[in-house]
Amino acid sequence: MGERLVVIGADAAGMTAASQARRRDRSLEVIAFEKGPFASYAACGEPYYVSGDVDTLDDLIARTPEQFAKAGIDLRLHSEVMSIDLERRSVSVHNHEDGATSETGFDQLLIATGARAFIPPMPGIDLDGVHTLRTLDDAHALRILAEGEPGNIVIVGGGYIGVEVAEAFDVRGWTVTMVEALPTIMARTLDEDFGAIIAEAMEKNDVNVVLGEMVERIEGDRHVTAVITSSETIPADIVVLAVGGRPVSELAGEAGITLGASGAIVVDDHQRTSVDGIWSAGDCADVYHRVTGTMVNLHLGTVANKTGRIAGINITGGDASFPGALGTAITRFHDLEIAVTGARLIDAESAGIDAVDVTVHGLTAAHYMPEASDLSIRLTVERGTARALGAQIAGGSGAGKRIDVFATAIWESMTADQLEWVDFAYAPPFAPVWDLMAIAARKASAAAVATR
Amino acid sequence: MGERLVVIGADAAGMTAASQARRRDRSLEVIAFEKGPFASYAACGEPYYVSGDVDTLDDLIARTPEQFAKAGIDLRLHSEVMSIDLERRSVSVHNHEDGATSETGFDQLLIATGARAFIPPMPGIDLDGVHTLRTLDDAHALRILAEGEPGNIVIVGGGYIGVEVAEAFDVRGWTVTMVEALPTIMARTLDEDFGAIIAEAMEKNDVNVVLGEMVERIEGDRHVTAVITSSETIPADIVVLAVGGRPVSELAGEAGITLGASGAIVVDDHQRTSVDGIWSAGDCADVYHRVTGTMVNLHLGTVANKTGRIAGINITGGDASFPGALGTAITRFHDLEIAVTGARLIDAESAGIDAVDVTVHGLTAAHYMPEASDLSIRLTVERGTARALGAQIAGGSGAGKRIDVFATAIWESMTADQLEWVDFAYAPPFAPVWDLMAIAARKASAAAVATR
Repeated sequence: MGERLVVIGADAAGMTAASQARRRDRSLEVIAFEKGPFASYAACGEPYYVSGDVDTLDDLIARTPEQFAKAGIDLRLHSEVMSIDLERRSVSVHNHEDGATSETGFDQLLIATGARAFIPPMPGIDLDGVHTLRTLDDAHALRILAEGEPGNIVIVGGGYIGVEVAEAFDVRGWTVTMVEALPTIMARTLDEDFGAIIAEAMEKNDVNVVLGEMVERIEGDRHVTAVITSSETIPADIVVLAVGGRPVSELAGEAGITLGASGAIVVDDHQRTSVDGIWSAGDCADVYHRVTGTMVNLHLGTVANKTGRIAGINITGGDASFPGALGTAITRFHDLEIAVTGARLIDAESAGIDAVDVTVHGLTAAHYMPEASDLSIRLTVERGTARALGAQIAGGSGAGKRIDVFATAIWESMTADQLEWVDFAYAPPFAPVWDLMAIAARKASAAAVATR
Repeated sequence: MGERLVVIGADAAGMTAASQARRRDRSLEVIAFEKGPFASYAACGEPYYVSGDVDTLDDLIARTPEQFAKAGIDLRLHSEVMSIDLERRSVSVHNHEDGATSETGFDQLLIATGARAFIPPMPGIDLDGVHTLRTLDDAHALRILAEGEPGNIVIVGGGYIGVEVAEAFDVRGWTVTMVEALPTIMARTLDEDFGAIIAEAMEKNDVNVVLGEMVERIEGDRHVTAVITSSETIPADIVVLAVGGRPVSELAGEAGITLGASGAIVVDDHQRTSVDGIWSAGDCADVYHRVTGTMVNLHLGTVANKTGRIAGINITGGDASFPGALGTAITRFHDLEIAVTGARLIDAESAGIDAVDVTVHGLTAAHYMPEASDLSIRLTVERGTARALGAQIAGGSGAGKRIDVFATAIWESMTADQLEWVDFAYAPPFAPVWDLMAIAARKASAAAVATR
């Protein structure tokens, strides 16, 4: 019998690691504990299940427990790890079905406990009708409500999930209000004017966007009836709290494993924690940001899958380094696509990089084509060298995935001068003859060397 | 009074150069001779004018003669340059409106004579109803026919323009047959199986695709009635010859300016021809291919614009080098997007590069999303180093512009190992969590070091 790998948390990072490890070492015993009723589900697809774009919850489940069993992974659902004993190299597991608690030893341990929705401390959060969207259970509950008689929904928080939930309920015919404490949508990743492009698109679709207002309390008797902000009372049949997530790292912290400033588990580029033989990956762990050079806690499916893969390789004696992330992200509100990568001017400056940014507005296709829609690109580059640092994109169909070009350029520390001349694809339905990406690069190239 | 720049050919390359030169040097006198009735038009948009996607011919004209006049450019339409006198530094110009011939001296001369549609030598090409699609006049004639009572159209040649004309007439309700002498569609830039993806999409749309058959003659009395191939007679009310273009370089050749093996004008990276003070840009000139390291003759709007810009800078005393092209191209047939960049395996091997390619099939979006459609990527890399050399893409909405990521990677000589980990954007409507681009890179990375 080979070694035993215990995995805590059976989602993207945990199960990618488990699968990768088993593929590399068929003698490895792998036990994965998942406190919930589902494993390996596509959390990012949940808003589209609520909207009805996705038919069934099963569609969101990447692999079933049976498939994991076939791959030699012993997946235990409803099994919550209560503590980690570093001395005995074991975890204590509470089974929520039969109420039993048992201990399981490990040779290697992967902590992939993910993140949870942050619940802001305010009166009324326990009322019926107040939801978050993180687990499949959350998604199921919201879907049932969304399918009912349309009423008023208030979404607290203007991040990615907030925008996606707004779209889902807008599709379902609900009256949607979004309340965001900051003066702009998606303020954590987008500059204010780019956030305003989304807010405008939402308002055009009759979503009521309330910016710069704190929610003071949620009102209702047993069931929510309204959301009270500093200046108004917004009627609400449903409230969705979408104010971000927090890494689930208490287990690790209590066991004495080092946590970072963000509260996430500190790992090196091999996904090793501070304790030998204990690994972490996914939303609960910090990752290296390639542009700012800092450790950050990102909650992105891509990063969870990649760090899980790295962990699985290294757990089985491999030598793989996670090369870092750029925080690349994309979403949409109906026809408007929004995407970001790397560092904004403000992020670069916080990281001590002397930077400059440029903004260009154009079209996704040749101006005379029916496909042509607005496209805005902001490119951030290092002053002097013109090294690409970050980009923001907003626009119609085909706008968003242009971010991958910038991600590739930033990944390779390409300069705007180089990017300007790249042989991008042109045909009238797809781009103007000079793609706006090249125009952005040309402008950034000039701005990088201009005197302040 | 400053120097005089004479430009022969007032399309993308010529007018980009003229505009750039005038912007840089307001004392420069610029005269542009255009033998046709239009200048500065978007030839690539013509199929979409035929289909009706584009309303009017004016939509395809980037800048009017009046706008050029305002920019200080003396644009002379209907003015065909008949010869270049290198001794006297002058051109002889025939005016097709008044029949007069005159001589105009120059200090600098830019030859931007473009390309013409190749007319294969065969019986019947002069019959009424036999067309090409290159000029705005061509487009106008085809549009009028397309708008008429639908009949049978036979397109000879399965390149980009052939496919786009097939779509246009399919939209108009015509019965479309495409005849291609090679065993596959777009054989000059796509591998056979990728060409087959297009042929299949065309056949699904009831386009009759006849491969591997030479057209022997076009039949008819005064007007075309049929196209006769080696094995069949295809009824035809219209025939469009779309078998590629040839550089228009006779003027240059007769004047003693060096032409290359392709028949195009030889230029260096500053767009200088073999004769001092004489420049060339656009379809009539060769360009450096960054992957194969050879000089090639591409007929692409992007290259014409870029080389025109380079010429305009250098003509006015600047020092800009054209960094080369990758032959990146994109088109569509209805919902199917097709794109290429760099070198295929066969191209790389012809250039003496030891290469390998991999092919992956997946989806454009998360599998559970309604947007998800097929996506195929072939990636060619150098054996050993895994340096990216070329890519081919075919797939549904969002597939085609992914080629720009490969173009960027190839531009920078990135390896597949690096590309595999780039932080590409993921959200269910836009990509699976591992974008197929990363999967292709991973597979290519492994293939590059595998033993033969």
